[in-house]
Amino acid sequence: MHIERPKQTPSQSFQKKMKATMSESSELKSSKTKPGVNRGLSILDFILRLAAIVGTLGSAIAMGTTNQTLPFVTQFIQFRAEYNDIPMFTFFVVANAIVSGYLVLSLPFSIFHILRNRAHGTRVLLVFLDGGMMALLTSGASAAAAIVYLAHKGNAKTNWLAVCQQFNSFCERISGSLIGSFAAIILFLVMIFLSGVALSHRRR
Amino acid sequence: MHIERPKQTPSQSFQKKMKATMSESSELKSSKTKPGVNRGLSILDFILRLAAIVGTLGSAIAMGTTNQTLPFVTQFIQFRAEYNDIPMFTFFVVANAIVSGYLVLSLPFSIFHILRNRAHGTRVLLVFLDGGMMALLTSGASAAAAIVYLAHKGNAKTNWLAVCQQFNSFCERISGSLIGSFAAIILFLVMIFLSGVALSHRRR
Repeated sequence: MHIERPKQTPSQSFQKKMKATMSESSELKSSKTKPGVNRGLSILDFILRLAAIVGTLGSAIAMGTTNQTLPFVTQFIQFRAEYNDIPMFTFFVVANAIVSGYLVLSLPFSIFHILRNRAHGTRVLLVFLDGGMMALLTSGASAAAAIVYLAHKGNAKTNWLAVCQQFNSFCERISGSLIGSFAAIILFLVMIFLSGVALSHRRR
Repeated sequence: MHIERPKQTPSQSFQKKMKATMSESSELKSSKTKPGVNRGLSILDFILRLAAIVGTLGSAIAMGTTNQTLPFVTQFIQFRAEYNDIPMFTFFVVANAIVSGYLVLSLPFSIFHILRNRAHGTRVLLVFLDGGMMALLTSGASAAAAIVYLAHKGNAKTNWLAVCQQFNSFCERISGSLIGSFAAIILFLVMIFLSGVALSHRRR
């Protein structure tokens, strides 16, 4: 039996061409829209990281440089308050310093994600590390906040007095330095959400 | 000009069939491997959630039910320590209760992910909510830990005395109740990581 390979008729070749063109254009379209979304998310991520660096670094510096010396001196003791009098404040400064260092190191990854939309391994890594750093930062911030609360209000049951009555301006600056940290925590939460969205958008 | 539509030759139809079969089998293969990985991840996620419920609920109950009455009484005061003497302990109990409630509500989603591997909207939602709940839990746990530390060690500068010298068994149980919370924080971190991996595996 002789099988002859049929030649393509003009109408067929036209149909094929049309199909190819259409599939190309639809691919082009999808590669224009989806990576566009991801690029936007990555740029937003980059900006949030910069803001979080400002917040954590500001908190660390504000807490670290605050001290107050009371204007009266007894024979042996000068009343002076510094952040390292209380271990939780030291932890707060260290945690903020570590997190801001991590954020600086994560910037290249963020830039990499802007350039390469389909990267997913580094995104998963960043979600994990972001989560860990958020936990560290939250831990430092809320331990410090607990002490600040005690310093302001005291506790009658345990007989811990409110020391803010003496160290007034010290307490004010300490309280203010918490803001940057808590803002950074919210930024971290948004960054984790954005990473999740970017991961789910990949190759739809 | 008359254009005749050529009939398919036997070899062509065979080639087409082969192609169809091959693409089907490759699809079957990919849908067998990747969703398999995701199903494993989802089952692990479910187990971790159950463990985290035990941890947070245990912490809340342990902290909430602890009290100690000292065996001596002055004329007006009975020395008695309870968790709601200190606002951070109350916050700890509330945070643990909220998180364990959230975890119970998230179980149906986890089961949904086991059944439907390709779900991504709910996964992103869970990553976000997990992150928020982790922050709440970390905040409660480390605020309580800060107070427990103070109660054990006191602070000379602020003249806050170590109250654990009197309320010994109270302090021990309070310290123990922190463990469940901190374990749950680590579980949350792992769950966020697993969700990230599952999102990146979808449709490869």
